[in-house]
Amino acid sequence: MAATNEQIQQAVESFFLLFNGVIIFLMSFGYTLIESGGVRSQNAGHSLFKTLLILITSAIAYWISGYAFSFGGDANVILGTRFWASERFGAKDRYPNVENFTSSNNIYKLNNQDPYIHYFYHYMLAFLVTNIAASSFAERCRVPVYVLFSIIMSGFVYPFLAHWMWGTNGWLGAVVGARDYGGSAIIFLTAGVAALIGTIFLGPRFGRFEPRTLPLFGHSIPVTSVGAILVAFGFFVLNSGADHRITGRAYGDRVGHGLVNTLLSGATSGGTYYLLQRIIENIQSSPKHLKRRVFLSTVNSILAGMVAVAGGAVAYNPWSAVIIGFIAALSFLLWSKLLIKIQIDDPVETAAVHIGGGLWGIFAVPIFRRTIGPNVNGEFVEDVFNSIIYRFGYGESWRGLLNSLCTAAVVMAWTAFFIGLLFLLLKLLNLLKVSKEEELRGIDLFQHGEPAYALRIYCAACGEQLQG
Amino acid sequence: MAATNEQIQQAVESFFLLFNGVIIFLMSFGYTLIESGGVRSQNAGHSLFKTLLILITSAIAYWISGYAFSFGGDANVILGTRFWASERFGAKDRYPNVENFTSSNNIYKLNNQDPYIHYFYHYMLAFLVTNIAASSFAERCRVPVYVLFSIIMSGFVYPFLAHWMWGTNGWLGAVVGARDYGGSAIIFLTAGVAALIGTIFLGPRFGRFEPRTLPLFGHSIPVTSVGAILVAFGFFVLNSGADHRITGRAYGDRVGHGLVNTLLSGATSGGTYYLLQRIIENIQSSPKHLKRRVFLSTVNSILAGMVAVAGGAVAYNPWSAVIIGFIAALSFLLWSKLLIKIQIDDPVETAAVHIGGGLWGIFAVPIFRRTIGPNVNGEFVEDVFNSIIYRFGYGESWRGLLNSLCTAAVVMAWTAFFIGLLFLLLKLLNLLKVSKEEELRGIDLFQHGEPAYALRIYCAACGEQLQG
Amino acid sequence: MAATNEQIQQAVESFFLLFNGVIIFLMSFGYTLIESGGVRSQNAGHSLFKTLLILITSAIAYWISGYAFSFGGDANVILGTRFWASERFGAKDRYPNVENFTSSNNIYKLNNQDPYIHYFYHYMLAFLVTNIAASSFAERCRVPVYVLFSIIMSGFVYPFLAHWMWGTNGWLGAVVGARDYGGSAIIFLTAGVAALIGTIFLGPRFGRFEPRTLPLFGHSIPVTSVGAILVAFGFFVLNSGADHRITGRAYGDRVGHGLVNTLLSGATSGGTYYLLQRIIENIQSSPKHLKRRVFLSTVNSILAGMVAVAGGAVAYNPWSAVIIGFIAALSFLLWSKLLIKIQIDDPVETAAVHIGGGLWGIFAVPIFRRTIGPNVNGEFVEDVFNSIIYRFGYGESWRGLLNSLCTAAVVMAWTAFFIGLLFLLLKLLNLLKVSKEEELRGIDLFQHGEPAYALRIYCAACGEQLQG
Repeated sequence: MAATNEQIQQAVESFFLLFNGVIIFLMSFGYTLIESGGVRSQNAGHSLFKTLLILITSAIAYWISGYAFSFGGDANVILGTRFWASERFGAKDRYPNVENFTSSNNIYKLNNQDPYIHYFYHYMLAFLVTNIAASSFAERCRVPVYVLFSIIMSGFVYPFLAHWMWGTNGWLGAVVGARDYGGSAIIFLTAGVAALIGTIFLGPRFGRFEPRTLPLFGHSIPVTSVGAILVAFGFFVLNSGADHRITGRAYGDRVGHGLVNTLLSGATSGGTYYLLQRIIENIQSSPKHLKRRVFLSTVNSILAGMVAVAGGAVAYNPWSAVIIGFIAALSFLLWSKLLIKIQIDDPVETAAVHIGGGLWGIFAVPIFRRTIGPNVNGEFVEDVFNSIIYRFGYGESWRGLLNSLCTAAVVMAWTAFFIGLLFLLLKLLNLLKVSKEEELRGIDLFQHGEPAYALRIYCAACGEQLQG
Repeated sequence: MAATNEQIQQAVESFFLLFNGVIIFLMSFGYTLIESGGVRSQNAGHSLFKTLLILITSAIAYWISGYAFSFGGDANVILGTRFWASERFGAKDRYPNVENFTSSNNIYKLNNQDPYIHYFYHYMLAFLVTNIAASSFAERCRVPVYVLFSIIMSGFVYPFLAHWMWGTNGWLGAVVGARDYGGSAIIFLTAGVAALIGTIFLGPRFGRFEPRTLPLFGHSIPVTSVGAILVAFGFFVLNSGADHRITGRAYGDRVGHGLVNTLLSGATSGGTYYLLQRIIENIQSSPKHLKRRVFLSTVNSILAGMVAVAGGAVAYNPWSAVIIGFIAALSFLLWSKLLIKIQIDDPVETAAVHIGGGLWGIFAVPIFRRTIGPNVNGEFVEDVFNSIIYRFGYGESWRGLLNSLCTAAVVMAWTAFFIGLLFLLLKLLNLLKVSKEEELRGIDLFQHGEPAYALRIYCAACGEQLQG
Repeated sequence: MAATNEQIQQAVESFFLLFNGVIIFLMSFGYTLIESGGVRSQNAGHSLFKTLLILITSAIAYWISGYAFSFGGDANVILGTRFWASERFGAKDRYPNVENFTSSNNIYKLNNQDPYIHYFYHYMLAFLVTNIAASSFAERCRVPVYVLFSIIMSGFVYPFLAHWMWGTNGWLGAVVGARDYGGSAIIFLTAGVAALIGTIFLGPRFGRFEPRTLPLFGHSIPVTSVGAILVAFGFFVLNSGADHRITGRAYGDRVGHGLVNTLLSGATSGGTYYLLQRIIENIQSSPKHLKRRVFLSTVNSILAGMVAVAGGAVAYNPWSAVIIGFIAALSFLLWSKLLIKIQIDDPVETAAVHIGGGLWGIFAVPIFRRTIGPNVNGEFVEDVFNSIIYRFGYGESWRGLLNSLCTAAVVMAWTAFFIGLLFLLLKLLNLLKVSKEEELRGIDLFQHGEPAYALRIYCAACGEQLQG
């Protein structure tokens, strides 16, 4: 017997969400590879190991409390209160009473994906946030710090923010009416702020600003590249799947816009940054100097563009995405220079990418959001409520900008407070940073007992292998 | 004209299976990368090359006989007898007589995927099994051995096991009633046993146990990490797609459980192993010693948890997955230590992971399986037949444990017999192992004529490139 | 309210196309990694950087003019004339007038994917073509050349070819009736010809043919392998999704055939090449010589088989794919030897793979195409128009071979003319190639200011880290 339309629709939406979830898993590790290639080789293994530990601890923490805080029902606007350790959470428990568990910003909430797939997807977001933030602790942070940070971040800090914006009855999304489709604020700004707080408390790496400001270059462009590929791959999926729905023409249209806008914003941002760098270089440098190293920063600028457009990738026109990407490059460049200026060491520019991109992304939503949205059947309707001014003249109402301001302030204050508290405590207990000797000789050997590389290199000149 | 429900359902299921299949392709290569990074650099290329040869030969062998043995109709309980070289196998040949080709353990067999997608998916499983097993031959095995092993394994040994468990009318699955949803036994235990037999016949690598037991460390944590990412990615998909179906609420629920259980079991297993290692270390070591190297083993322990939960990931509750993962870590640790104790060299712990995880996984199915299953429409029904005891008090009946015992014995005996025979023959013909000189100087150069790496390294200190 | 059948079908097809598109993104970068690992380490970063620049520039160029030329309506048989910079292109603008935007070779054009997903998918093809071609410029090409090449290729040259074969009302596909389902001609031959023209104008790398012919080996088999994995992964998806449709039994059947044929052709081609090489070696070499290096070429031969089968992977029987793969290996080997003979330097054999495979692939379509195709409902019909002779005796009509000849000639002439013109201009302006000093000392440092690797290597012998 063939399945009913409702069953098939649910299967399609569940599959779509599953697809997004597993790819965001790859995306998280992509960030890890960017970091690993972007640090010196004696610390490259540490970057990879810390992600294993974050995966392990965040999986448990999110299971015990994270999902419950985020999506545990609509009891109140502050936090969810059910499904601790996923108790009484399966489809069998949830469907009989026809309560709709879907908790995206989609106002019609008809996605009907399976609860556990919803859980899996949102865990992957929590892992992503935690893992991005931890990138900035590279080359000097002790192992237990990652573990504690991961538990606090994925089990407590991020879940509240997710509830407020995306939860049924969350105060930011459902009550105030703020919009953050793909997570410019809730995912990326959160990660960026946590990264910044962490790196401030950890202090700069040895040799970064003293005796003089000197970049500490990464050790492997191929490793960084593999990471960048996976992250960009993830952004296409994350941004285009921001509605968590694909059935219905208007939703298909939004998914397609998400893909194309992510591409155009990323490309514009990366191109703008590269051009600016090469122009500055040609003005400043005498010809005998080597060029600046911009591979990692160009990658980061592409990502900043994708972060910035995430907020409303499904709801922008392509030309808006180009403008957003252009401004994202400037914002990233500004934050990146600013952090160096005030001597905050941001090893792989995590904070600059995600604060620079994320902050701008939140304000872009009301400015550029189209007024065409899906109705209950996924067909097109004009959405007049939130859009008094449309396109330049008629952009979104001032209320939208106020909502964005509110969202940004809430995300930054909440994250900074709790992550700051955690790092302050660890600093007072002197548990934060490895010793100077460990930092100088390489964290891989001292924290993990093993180097990332142990190559016997074949010497083409002498036809022999050298033990290196 | 719009498609009918039946057509759309079939398309969704076919797409889901295609998605699973191509990702299991990545997963297989993930195992190869784990191996390549986990061996010494002079043998790293060999690991990658052998997988190319396995891909080539297993594709042909599975086409000629493998699929036919596994899924070539229901003529008898021992083996299939049709579709040699996929002859008369396309949808056009198969659909007119409405014979249902689906051969998963799903008792209602309504998946209706396209036959060739089913073929592709099951080939990828055969490739996976063959490729996992071959990981343990690393650093000392000659090229022709891989080729013969691949043909025997993917064209003969594995297909019979797949038929018995998953084939229409297979004696283990359909007749006896054993259950192995995601392949703890048929995929992973088979691979583990073949790995063990192979590595026993090959003997330990030079320097592994003589003059004294000494680990031979891998050369690249980044390469191992990229592999680990792909394997974990594959496990999410493999375990959650074990029913080969997503339409219908109960199936969506099972897919979702598969994802979450894989995550929780892997995380628990990895965490348990890491904690145990660090505790043992702190008890044993004097403080000046370097830490143990545990990166590869932590990765392997995560995988052992995912292997163990595979057997019934779609049918466990999350708390069961946590328990299963915890025990999987102990089982992996035990097997790993045992093999070292009896001086069996298991280069990247393939045998310990897949026997340790797989064996426990088979027995976990009757202990932890939920009683809620899908009916013909994919809705929920209580499944009372196989579950006299439920949860701790009412777990699965003793019959389930007997079935598991039977499955484990059959898989181990069948695999050990044929793979043992193959390796015995090759050993007698002295074709198994490279010469001692080749092993010492690196198998890449001698078996393939090229090193895995030929780096010219930039020396930061002297500002010059060194030919290395 | 549940979605209608039409809505669900559209969602499934859109999702399928989205899935194909994002994976082709990975595939493009796979080619880049193959190139990066296949060149010397002092040029490895350049290969990766150039792909970032191609991504950035082609995204903008395809947006502005590329898609419009390809799929901008059916105004005439030569080029499309709408949707510049995707203006008036969203589903809302397109659906009211029920014009069907689908532009695959599927004669019934019922795919109904969302326009922007269609755009995204076809952009990824343009990026793929451009990026494959640029692989052959490795180790000696200046940065601005890539930028200009990318803009011309993805914004002008390729889009016209895509329109002619796949566009509504294109003269090659719709008018003349040529068939190129998966892109053997339009994607791969185009890329191969552009690669050949580029590498001819750039001239051989220093030391390649003078003082005597000497291979310049790559530096990293692991990096090449990761690339190969992603490319093969992409081929499964690209070839099986050539109809851009999965709903309907006949379409499911074709998708499944696409998967299996890609596998079998790739495996046969790789196996044939490897065997031939080892046989030649055993005949020619004295035993003390080292073996030939064949890793990269074996990978390339697998890819040549997948390129050759792309033209009609959805429409061949598996035994045809085996034959096609066998001949593809010979064709690749022939082209590869030919290029060396006439002293054309093809650094990672891009031209040999894609001309060798692509050219044969075009002619294979009429020879091996099955006569069973889908009707308007996706059910099976016999397709008699284009198949007077079927299987060996009754293969496709001579008209099919003429069409293939015409396609090949058009693709080669069009691509060679414009790419030749571009490179001629750049050569006259002396902007093409880096200086001899830059080439000798490594293009990474001189063109980008940074080496791909900066390893501090741990020395197992001395227990110390060496700054290398």
